Amino acid sequence: MEFSEWYSDILEKAGIYDLRYPIKGCGVYLPYGFKIRRYSFEILRKLLDETNHDETLFPMLIPENLLAKEGEHIKGFEDEVFWVTHGGKTPLEVKLALRPTSETTMYYMMKQWIKVHTDLPMKLYQVVNTFRYETKHTRPLIRLREIMSFKEAHTAHATKEDCDAQITEALNLYGEFFDEICVPYIISKRPEWDKFPGADYTMAFDTIYPDGKTMQIGTVHNLGQNFAKTFELEFETPDGEKDFVYQTCYGISDRAIASLISVHGDEKGLVIPVDVAPIQIVLIPLLFKGKEEIVMDKIKELNNTLKSEFRVHLDDRDIRPGRKYNDWEIKGVPLRIELGPRDIENGQALIVRRDTGEKITVEYSNILEEVEKIVSMYKENLKIKADEKIKNFLTVVNFESDVNALSEKVKAALLENKGIILIPFDESVYNEEFEELIDASVLGQTAYEGKDYISVARTY
Amino acid sequence: MEFSEWYSDILEKAGIYDLRYPIKGCGVYLPYGFKIRRYSFEILRKLLDETNHDETLFPMLIPENLLAKEGEHIKGFEDEVFWVTHGGKTPLEVKLALRPTSETTMYYMMKQWIKVHTDLPMKLYQVVNTFRYETKHTRPLIRLREIMSFKEAHTAHATKEDCDAQITEALNLYGEFFDEICVPYIISKRPEWDKFPGADYTMAFDTIYPDGKTMQIGTVHNLGQNFAKTFELEFETPDGEKDFVYQTCYGISDRAIASLISVHGDEKGLVIPVDVAPIQIVLIPLLFKGKEEIVMDKIKELNNTLKSEFRVHLDDRDIRPGRKYNDWEIKGVPLRIELGPRDIENGQALIVRRDTGEKITVEYSNILEEVEKIVSMYKENLKIKADEKIKNFLTVVNFESDVNALSEKVKAALLENKGIILIPFDESVYNEEFEELIDASVLGQTAYEGKDYISVARTY
Repeated sequence: MEFSEWYSDILEKAGIYDLRYPIKGCGVYLPYGFKIRRYSFEILRKLLDETNHDETLFPMLIPENLLAKEGEHIKGFEDEVFWVTHGGKTPLEVKLALRPTSETTMYYMMKQWIKVHTDLPMKLYQVVNTFRYETKHTRPLIRLREIMSFKEAHTAHATKEDCDAQITEALNLYGEFFDEICVPYIISKRPEWDKFPGADYTMAFDTIYPDGKTMQIGTVHNLGQNFAKTFELEFETPDGEKDFVYQTCYGISDRAIASLISVHGDEKGLVIPVDVAPIQIVLIPLLFKGKEEIVMDKIKELNNTLKSEFRVHLDDRDIRPGRKYNDWEIKGVPLRIELGPRDIENGQALIVRRDTGEKITVEYSNILEEVEKIVSMYKENLKIKADEKIKNFLTVVNFESDVNALSEKVKAALLENKGIILIPFDESVYNEEFEELIDASVLGQTAYEGKDYISVARTY
Repeated sequence: MEFSEWYSDILEKAGIYDLRYPIKGCGVYLPYGFKIRRYSFEILRKLLDETNHDETLFPMLIPENLLAKEGEHIKGFEDEVFWVTHGGKTPLEVKLALRPTSETTMYYMMKQWIKVHTDLPMKLYQVVNTFRYETKHTRPLIRLREIMSFKEAHTAHATKEDCDAQITEALNLYGEFFDEICVPYIISKRPEWDKFPGADYTMAFDTIYPDGKTMQIGTVHNLGQNFAKTFELEFETPDGEKDFVYQTCYGISDRAIASLISVHGDEKGLVIPVDVAPIQIVLIPLLFKGKEEIVMDKIKELNNTLKSEFRVHLDDRDIRPGRKYNDWEIKGVPLRIELGPRDIENGQALIVRRDTGEKITVEYSNILEEVEKIVSMYKENLKIKADEKIKNFLTVVNFESDVNALSEKVKAALLENKGIILIPFDESVYNEEFEELIDASVLGQTAYEGKDYISVARTY
């Protein structure tokens, strides 16, 4: 099955997201999908809170004149903005944009709050819906007109050094987040011609989907003093001078969810990382005539034992076990525990891992520790697999000083090896002309195993 | 100070909400305010999750034809809807409403999901932003154009009995929520002329603000089969017949936050219920020359001890203690603990309660238990106070069979006693004409101490 077909299929079958809504690029997070989102964003929130980011909530509507304040910025968004023009039947005096992102909103307010160096650093974030009038092909959780979950952080600093240090903190924080949800990535400095509108430079996280195309899953922008000058974000320095703040912003969206689904899924369905799994362990009683009560009593006891540490679901539906296995494999539940009369007689239980399919018989008397052990192996394995998945998609080519020879080589490599092609970094080909020649996207400047490359791929 | 002035003032001073945004009725949840919101909505989420409601996320935009599908419903909203008419520079073929509420969105999707009685009950909720083009005076967190936090639940059931039982569950659940955040309330069945557009009937929670005006803080609607018929929400019954589902919906907004602020605040600032306090205990070192280290070491130790159970903040700013007391009183931190060299010598610490101002000297060796005890007294006291606050605002008048005499009496009572006037229930005056006569709002039919009343008040 083609990846994109698999993807649409699994979103529906596993109850993640339903796109049958009568607006293109708008859909519904279903209960199971929403839980994955909730646990994932809880991890992200925790990482942000621990590094002294403050959660806030800013307005969704942006007056046209405010959105247009930063010239480069608005140019990057003006064709993609939804406009509110009427309240009831009354035409509005100033039309209002649905936020495509919140720089202008936030920096307008920061102007009210930042007066003196002791007000800095200011590190704010919010998790909100944002909007783009996408004219391209939309794709659930990947390219939407309503991005349902956008975590955007915005920081302001007194010095360039603090600002640069914030970029490092953000990169580490995002790296940790993607590690925790088992999404592999490479980090690139985006080329000038593909940076965030209004930024000094943009760092980006890309992952690779099973079809070899890359997906941008997180960006970190160093805004320097560009927006600060436009929004007059001046403050008094310790020496009593005036200076503009230095700013960064960084964002992660629903694509994080799309990616953890896409990277680990297999032909049977989802394979969900333990920490974000709505159900971590499913219990399946094997019922035989006359032994129902013994089994149900035991499995309820097991449910209570495991509940203290895990999100457990006891599947007591009146259907045959095989169908249950199938249902929970589709939904990617990490562990399944089967318990029948013979297991009880033998003081055992059978644990089945979703990631490897491995079946493990364990002593019932010791089951909590056994489960803990297997859960930690499952986590470890998903991380290793994630790592392998991206490594298998990296191909290094040798440099050629002749541009045409190099571009032919890269094109051939792109055909032969899906994924990312790494070209030893050289200024001479780091430009849009070369990008056009190779008929693929330049992700940017990428450090890999201690060397510097130009990374190139077909992208989503 | 007038209440409304106090209210605007405290939102700013305590760092709750900033309305200096260039769109009327749109503002920013500041970090401290956002934390109160987060903890409050976490309580609500927990109550919903425990009663098998599934969290979801539906689109914010609603096509005009979908919003207009239910005739009564759209009439209730059409003058208050913001309309998106353009994507970039392109006029949209169908204009899109910013959701004022999500009945139409959700029921359109329920149609895809509900086929047979085993699909029921379906109990969904979401926490989202909603929009009303308010032409009246807006007020932060109370009457906004962007309602930043709207928890809306929508349920579908196979029988009228299940649906009615759901109304009871919702009322209990909301009651528990308001109890936990210490907001007192009365429950009324809204009169026919003031029910939710499209509902069979509406139950509402009202609280009373310090100025004696009531505030609607939660509503629970029995939709019967009205929307089901419009949205063709048919299912197959156990007997193989076709029937329409029975529906309820219920919502709670930012007004919950506005109310917990308003009901308990005093002239010094906020008084926050423990469970939703961003900081539950603030520690203030009393530093004297030469003893700084002893005090700081001890108070850091105390910080670590308390952190295991409470949200604690150690205020080590280099300003005098009096200013610190003042700052944290404004922010309504439940307990303040002061620790100086003499306290350490005596093996004591001083705890100051924000609700009563009481100062309590406790043994340091036993401090965790002492704090637990005081925290639970604080909680209890806020609940008792909440209860008293609403009781003091209730006035029962005797019934008069002469409508004019009754209305004069009610008007006099409204002048004399701010708050809610309870009139023994009588059909003859339960109508809009009477409401006009008394020049106040009929909240509805209210059970109080075993009797049935018509409740009347000036409302926000």
